[in-house]
Amino acid sequence: MGTLSYKDFKLNKVFDFGYMNLSEQEIIDFALFIDPLDFHTNKEIAEKGIFGGLITSGPHLFFLFYKNHYVPLFKDTIIAGLEVNNWKFLKPVYANMKVFCKVTIASMKPNKEKNRVAVKWHFDFTNEKGEHFQMLDMTVLHKMKEEKKKIKK
Amino acid sequence: MGTLSYKDFKLNKVFDFGYMNLSEQEIIDFALFIDPLDFHTNKEIAEKGIFGGLITSGPHLFFLFYKNHYVPLFKDTIIAGLEVNNWKFLKPVYANMKVFCKVTIASMKPNKEKNRVAVKWHFDFTNEKGEHFQMLDMTVLHKMKEEKKKIKK
Repeated sequence: MGTLSYKDFKLNKVFDFGYMNLSEQEIIDFALFIDPLDFHTNKEIAEKGIFGGLITSGPHLFFLFYKNHYVPLFKDTIIAGLEVNNWKFLKPVYANMKVFCKVTIASMKPNKEKNRVAVKWHFDFTNEKGEHFQMLDMTVLHKMKEEKKKIKK
Repeated sequence: MGTLSYKDFKLNKVFDFGYMNLSEQEIIDFALFIDPLDFHTNKEIAEKGIFGGLITSGPHLFFLFYKNHYVPLFKDTIIAGLEVNNWKFLKPVYANMKVFCKVTIASMKPNKEKNRVAVKWHFDFTNEKGEHFQMLDMTVLHKMKEEKKKIKK
């Protein structure tokens, strides 16, 4: 599937991003890059802590699906990120757990004059039973239509 | 300054994280890792786009100060992240711009029985004139006191 355009945006439309899981090494590498807390980066310390094992950095789940699914689908329409709200970290995610992600268009505020639309994307991250690991609302400014390319003389 | 503890937490207390700036290469490397949009990763395309140049991925600013200032100061007290709200991307950040960061304790909900406190940290990211590039509220569960280590016989 290639990049989508504004005609694919509909209120309450759900995009199913399937599932992914993370190895211990992927959890550690991501956390060393932006969230270097011991319970994300050090297996031995994590096993003695309240979670009883290495857990994924909260932001890792979102960025995993954002980078691998959202960006490839929507990148040609994105003007800029506007805001993030209600990002809730509800359950720990351990290595090799299946995490499912679905994204719903929760609101759309078009500005036809400027050829722009502010879309609120609601992300749900769940386990196989549908219990939430995490959720988040991301509002992004998109192009409504591709502007016509200037024709070179 | 070493890691702080709960006795350093006071409502409305402000922590000044100073300023940082990002090179073009740092902007590109971060974006390739989690936010690979052309206007963060490709100078030539970015220069032709609406921002007129390469701009920093929104999350980059937060994670820069979080990793380099917040984590070193508070890591020994952190139990888990709870939520992120009101993360607003207000102005683009270009390479070599000074970004100042101050963090304020916006609320504290202690649970003495469980020896825990939920702290809402309000982050302000501004330029030299005090204009906001970005802001965010992050709620984190912290230990109130270090638990006594078990004494080995």
